[in-house]
Amino acid sequence: QDENIRRQAKDRLDRLTMPHWALGRLLDLALDLAGMTGSLQPPVDRRLIVTMAGDHGVAAEGVSAFPQEVTGQMVANIANGGAGISTLARVANARVQVVDMGAACDLSDLVDSGQILSRRIAPGTANMALGAAMTREQAVRSLEAGIEIANTFAGEADLFGTGEMGIANTTPSSAIVALLADATADQATGCGTGIDDNRRKHKVSVIERALQTNLPDPHDGLDVLAKVGGFEIGGLAGLILGAAALRKPIIIDGFISTAAALLAQSLAPASVDYMIAAHHSIEQGHQLALARLGKKPLLDLDFRLGEGTGAALAMNLVEGAKRLLTEMATFDEAAVSQGK
Amino acid sequence: QDENIRRQAKDRLDRLTMPHWALGRLLDLALDLAGMTGSLQPPVDRRLIVTMAGDHGVAAEGVSAFPQEVTGQMVANIANGGAGISTLARVANARVQVVDMGAACDLSDLVDSGQILSRRIAPGTANMALGAAMTREQAVRSLEAGIEIANTFAGEADLFGTGEMGIANTTPSSAIVALLADATADQATGCGTGIDDNRRKHKVSVIERALQTNLPDPHDGLDVLAKVGGFEIGGLAGLILGAAALRKPIIIDGFISTAAALLAQSLAPASVDYMIAAHHSIEQGHQLALARLGKKPLLDLDFRLGEGTGAALAMNLVEGAKRLLTEMATFDEAAVSQGK
Repeated sequence: QDENIRRQAKDRLDRLTMPHWALGRLLDLALDLAGMTGSLQPPVDRRLIVTMAGDHGVAAEGVSAFPQEVTGQMVANIANGGAGISTLARVANARVQVVDMGAACDLSDLVDSGQILSRRIAPGTANMALGAAMTREQAVRSLEAGIEIANTFAGEADLFGTGEMGIANTTPSSAIVALLADATADQATGCGTGIDDNRRKHKVSVIERALQTNLPDPHDGLDVLAKVGGFEIGGLAGLILGAAALRKPIIIDGFISTAAALLAQSLAPASVDYMIAAHHSIEQGHQLALARLGKKPLLDLDFRLGEGTGAALAMNLVEGAKRLLTEMATFDEAAVSQGK
Repeated sequence: QDENIRRQAKDRLDRLTMPHWALGRLLDLALDLAGMTGSLQPPVDRRLIVTMAGDHGVAAEGVSAFPQEVTGQMVANIANGGAGISTLARVANARVQVVDMGAACDLSDLVDSGQILSRRIAPGTANMALGAAMTREQAVRSLEAGIEIANTFAGEADLFGTGEMGIANTTPSSAIVALLADATADQATGCGTGIDDNRRKHKVSVIERALQTNLPDPHDGLDVLAKVGGFEIGGLAGLILGAAALRKPIIIDGFISTAAALLAQSLAPASVDYMIAAHHSIEQGHQLALARLGKKPLLDLDFRLGEGTGAALAMNLVEGAKRLLTEMATFDEAAVSQGK
């Protein structure tokens, strides 16, 4: 972040017509926006949510309440405007760009019609309970695809948001959080789309098996991604790295996006400076992951959907923060007496 | 609330394309909006924040960090578009209507120019530490003015928000919360615009004196308002009653607005059904007041400004909730497989 612009922003925010810092975390956010963008007029108007889709070999272990075909069905639902993210993105004046990073089904119709982009690496990862989810080369490709997407949209987006769709993808996310936030599989594993406690215990044992089978090196983000990650998770980590390199703020959605953010942090710690945490998911382990990033989320509304829904809802708060910095009057400007 | 429409809304929300109730509290809010408005297409597009201003005789006791002249200066700042609420209302696509319920200074220029409305009862309340803040007749008039404002704007507002401006008005609010939420003055009293702990102790003792001097009857909301209330607080209580009678949702801003909501609850318990709690203020006692209303606020961003700023920020969440109900596809509509 640009410390000089941050200081200038702080100087103005300190003098706005209200008790000092009385809009609390929205002012903290305004400061961050100035620091991230290096501007006292931080641009946030052109908003893009990138929702990355991928499938997971580990779904074969019965870790999700939904069948794998739902990944492709939901991609179509998003592309057709009927999903949660479609709705909340309209509220946020944000565009949604779905990217197929590796769904198991054939999405070429949606690609050919221009409704989604393809950066497809393979039709789903391998089952991480039996071996590495992907090769190290595929992990690099997924990251590069995300960086490339950030650069592709650099000219038409001021503010990015992350989202994902992929049946079973809380399972690799929990494995990543366990490794990178120094937690046990049990601590990092929640109920995903809504499995019961018995199935959650099974999910924990699958993750433990994946960790024992693959022995990922927690100090090597690329190794973690390759062995227990996912194509859409790697893509999002790349997107975050790309946005940070462009000095554009990127709103991190929920649990899976935060797992991707941990990978980005592991690969380039400075990228954390450009992340905004959207919301506190009820998914167990999210809190641990956010703490490792050092982020406090803006919202806490018991969301557990993903797709970018929390990021979309947080965009309005980002706009509010920006406009406090650029539109609100100071005590001098408004001739208001100060407190003592 | 309309239980039949609520059931119909629930039936649709249960079938939306996501894990069941995965957008948590936004779906609870959608259900409430349907119940409040009696519609599966709850109107929320025309938004009005009513910011009521008043002064307080108790300011003479040195309970605030700001001088009394700031009430009028801030009313002008709001009318000129430079205040926190001015900015956040623009973000929310909401209109702000300031109503002078009884500021100490002369605001007739702003009234004459049409920038604010006057429902002025007196130039500030009397000092409640020495006697009743107002007469019972003035208390009735302040409530009636609020009801009348709700009716006046009934044809041009679907969604109301409350706001206030009045130096020292956390002091009567704390007294009201102590009485109506069954708390001690100490539990109900915070640091307002930013006084230090010594001054907070002094403020607590002033409130204790007001309670002992006036002996308000906690079972008689009108008596509480008259003895330890304020004109803008009575006006907001009336506005809430008026909105509830119109079956229109009203977003309750922060601590002072919540004190007004407690008065409305005391006078007409069913009015609670139409209230939406905007945010959790850092003002001590707010939590107690919200618990008495049985409300969990939508946001928690360390706000302590008032003016309607939290209500404005929450309006976007209300729009999101409404649009999930009206725009999101069901499993059947989108041909998505359900979970098991």
